[in-house]
Amino acid sequence: MNKGVFLLSGGMDSTTLFAYILEEGWTLYPLSIDYGQKHSAAEITSATRIWARYQHKYKEKKVGDLKIFNFDLSQIGYSALTDKDWEVPEEMKDQIQTVVPFRNTILATLAAACGESLDLNPITIFMTPVKEDFEAYRDCRREFYDSLEKTLSLGSTHGVKVEIKTPFIYMTKKEIVALGTKLAVPYRLTHSCYKGLRPACGKCPACIERLEAFKANNLQDPIEYRKR
Amino acid sequence: MNKGVFLLSGGMDSTTLFAYILEEGWTLYPLSIDYGQKHSAAEITSATRIWARYQHKYKEKKVGDLKIFNFDLSQIGYSALTDKDWEVPEEMKDQIQTVVPFRNTILATLAAACGESLDLNPITIFMTPVKEDFEAYRDCRREFYDSLEKTLSLGSTHGVKVEIKTPFIYMTKKEIVALGTKLAVPYRLTHSCYKGLRPACGKCPACIERLEAFKANNLQDPIEYRKR
Repeated sequence: MNKGVFLLSGGMDSTTLFAYILEEGWTLYPLSIDYGQKHSAAEITSATRIWARYQHKYKEKKVGDLKIFNFDLSQIGYSALTDKDWEVPEEMKDQIQTVVPFRNTILATLAAACGESLDLNPITIFMTPVKEDFEAYRDCRREFYDSLEKTLSLGSTHGVKVEIKTPFIYMTKKEIVALGTKLAVPYRLTHSCYKGLRPACGKCPACIERLEAFKANNLQDPIEYRKR
Repeated sequence: MNKGVFLLSGGMDSTTLFAYILEEGWTLYPLSIDYGQKHSAAEITSATRIWARYQHKYKEKKVGDLKIFNFDLSQIGYSALTDKDWEVPEEMKDQIQTVVPFRNTILATLAAACGESLDLNPITIFMTPVKEDFEAYRDCRREFYDSLEKTLSLGSTHGVKVEIKTPFIYMTKKEIVALGTKLAVPYRLTHSCYKGLRPACGKCPACIERLEAFKANNLQDPIEYRKR
C-alpha cells in the first residue's frame, strides 16, 4: 500500500495535488509548516480546513492527522516573505525577493524526518513545485530534488530510501486549475496571498499568478480580493 | 580572505576545530542551534563562553558575533536526545537511540542559509563529524556531505557554490584532544553530556567517549563528573 508524507501549504497547487494523489489511492500524512512566513496564519488555517475536508471524505485510514510544525526561518531572514522590514513586492519581476533561502531543503528534510518517525519504507514525500516556479526558485527544479533525494537517502538513520515526488513540476498553474476543477477542489478554502491578507491583496506575485490561472480557464477565482 | 559559517556546538570536537581553523587565519561566523536536545541549555552556555573567549582573542573582524537559532526538532521526536519520555541510554551499543533524524542535514542547511544572508561566495560551512561518529550516525560520513554540498549548491538562491568542510572526519577523539591540548583549547568550558548534566553524568555515550579520549592521552578531563 502506497503511503507518503504530504507537504500541504494550503495554497492552490498543493491542495490540487493532495486531491489528485488521494484520488489515486495513496494514504497520506499531511504536514504544514509555519516557517515564519508573513502569510503563515492564513496558510495554516487553509491547510487545516482542507485537511479536515479530505479526512472527512476519505476517513482516518487514508488521510492521517495534520501535523503542524514551527520552524522559524525569520531568524535567518533575507527574504521579503519573512523579514518584517521588507515589504512583499507587487511586481512579478521582483519575485526573487520572495525566495526564502533553502526553504525547500528544510521543508523536504522535515518531511523526511516525519516519514522516518512514521516508519515509512521507502520514505515518500510529496511536494508541489510547478512550472512557473522554475525561474525564480532554484529549489523548485527537478535536478535539485534528484540530488536532495540522494542526500536524504544517504543521511537517513537506517539507510531507508527517500523519494521526493513532484508530479506537477512540469505543469502550469493554468493546467493545475483545470485539473482541480475536474476534481472539485474547494479552491475557496485555499490561500495564496504572500501578504497574508484575506481578502487577498491581488497584487503580490502569488495573487497575480493565481488570478491569471483562473482567468486562463475562463473561471472566477472563488476567494475574495480587496477592491483596487 | 577565507570566510565561513562555523557550527559551534560547545562540545570538545567543534571547539577544537574552531581553535584550529582560527589559527589557520580564517574569519568565522559561529552559529549554535538549540534543536530541542536535552542538553541544549548546557551546550548553548558552553558555546557562548567559548565564542566570547575566542572573539576576545581574535577580535570582531576574525570572529563574528555568535548567532543562536531555535529550531525545535523535538516536534518530530524519534530520538532519545529530544524525546522527554525516552531516557538517554548509558551504553555505547545503544548509541543509535541518540540519532536525531536528519539533524545534520537541517544544521548544515541552516548554516548555508546563514552564509547566504552574509553574502558569502562560496558559502563555506564548517562541521565537526569525527571518526567515531561514522558507525551510528550515517549523516556523519563524507559521502553524505559530498552529496549535501551538491544539493545545497543546486538549491542556493543565486547559484552560489556551497562547500561543507569537515577537517576532523577521519580523526579520532583521542587525536582531537591531543591537537586541542597543543592549541590550549579551554576544555573546561566545553560540554558533552547528552543528559545535559553539569557535573556530567559520566555514563551516556557522549561522556564515555569523552572520558576515553582524555584517558588515552594520559590527561585529566578538566570538567566535573558526578560521583559514581
